[in-house]
Amino acid sequence: MTTGHEHTVKAFDRDIGHLRALISQMGGLAEQAISDAMLALTRNDPALAKEVRAKDKAIDAIEAEVEKLTVRVIALRAPMADDLREVVAALKIAAVIERIGDYAKNIAKRVASIHGETHEPRIEPLSILPAMAQLASDMVHDVLDAFSARDPQAAVEICKRDSALDDYYNSIFRVLVTYMVENPKTISQVAHLLFVAKNLERIGDHATNVAEMVYFAATGQTMAERETSDFAG
Amino acid sequence: MTTGHEHTVKAFDRDIGHLRALISQMGGLAEQAISDAMLALTRNDPALAKEVRAKDKAIDAIEAEVEKLTVRVIALRAPMADDLREVVAALKIAAVIERIGDYAKNIAKRVASIHGETHEPRIEPLSILPAMAQLASDMVHDVLDAFSARDPQAAVEICKRDSALDDYYNSIFRVLVTYMVENPKTISQVAHLLFVAKNLERIGDHATNVAEMVYFAATGQTMAERETSDFAG
Repeated sequence: MTTGHEHTVKAFDRDIGHLRALISQMGGLAEQAISDAMLALTRNDPALAKEVRAKDKAIDAIEAEVEKLTVRVIALRAPMADDLREVVAALKIAAVIERIGDYAKNIAKRVASIHGETHEPRIEPLSILPAMAQLASDMVHDVLDAFSARDPQAAVEICKRDSALDDYYNSIFRVLVTYMVENPKTISQVAHLLFVAKNLERIGDHATNVAEMVYFAATGQTMAERETSDFAG
Repeated sequence: MTTGHEHTVKAFDRDIGHLRALISQMGGLAEQAISDAMLALTRNDPALAKEVRAKDKAIDAIEAEVEKLTVRVIALRAPMADDLREVVAALKIAAVIERIGDYAKNIAKRVASIHGETHEPRIEPLSILPAMAQLASDMVHDVLDAFSARDPQAAVEICKRDSALDDYYNSIFRVLVTYMVENPKTISQVAHLLFVAKNLERIGDHATNVAEMVYFAATGQTMAERETSDFAG
């Protein structure tokens, strides 16, 4: 091994460490955005909703930084195989976290439409959404832990949780539609709640996408290939 | 200029030509998916809806090809400045088109829920959605033309059209909510139509995002910077 090569390896390790730190930081901001958006919604707190929207720019800025760094790493260090997969995964994961941040921002944007300007009656089904948000947010947290730990088995577990979230969403959809039928005056507000529930369901889908990327980065196999070989075995 | 350098330049041109062709092919498939999904919806054609869902895999496959090619180009050709911006733009645009395909697939998935299994009454507001779909699909078409032509001015024009689409969406939202209030038996079906309208609005947002990427790739400036300097001037 030449000194030049060693130098490149160390530089690569430093870069990948930096990438992991940026992803972890983005993930923390996205989790915070989900929980603040839900607090703003359940407490009818427009100031907090505004804060969520403002802070989304910080997530976007880190994504741009990840993009610059990954391009530089690929161009300068020319990583191969496992290392290249990990760098590309970081780039793609950053794009997904940015979208998760957008969903949280979108929930925050709906606070005013859901509560209305006048003091309209409280929408009861609102109370079942925070538990769904917690499920989605936990998936985001755990999948980023799996990325940091390069743990494909944890990634598989997270994918399994997505169907529980989908079931939760389907129940909420029915509850909200029934509520609309029984309380036609609230239809406009509850329609916004349907979108909130859908946003939470999409956050879970994105966490699942990240889990698939983590799995591929760590193993070089897609999760579907793994399932196929399981069935074959 | 050395022969080796010339060789790299020619190889780069060939790669970027290949990338553009892949993006254009993906875009064509995404446009087709939007129009087929809307046909399936307005004609209540479950077979066509199923076809849209199946064809989405082709879009995903091209995205994976774009990703592989961009990573190879960055690693092997080490493009700089304008060229690097264009390669990164191709990677990001492919990811956005993949999402546009997902929105079309999502519309196709709702065909059964909107029409119901029994022959329920036709939902009148369905008739106003195809025009909105056309607006969104045209934005996708035109922004990919702008990418092929490296035309930042065309990209700016596309961004302006997004607010017309947003207005359309807001009108449809109100029409659908009014329809729900007046026809409570259709609430569940119309709730799915709300999501269809929202998907079309999101497709427009994504076309706008692509327009911003095209602008940045062609000029090295973000569109916001341009606006700021316009205001300053």
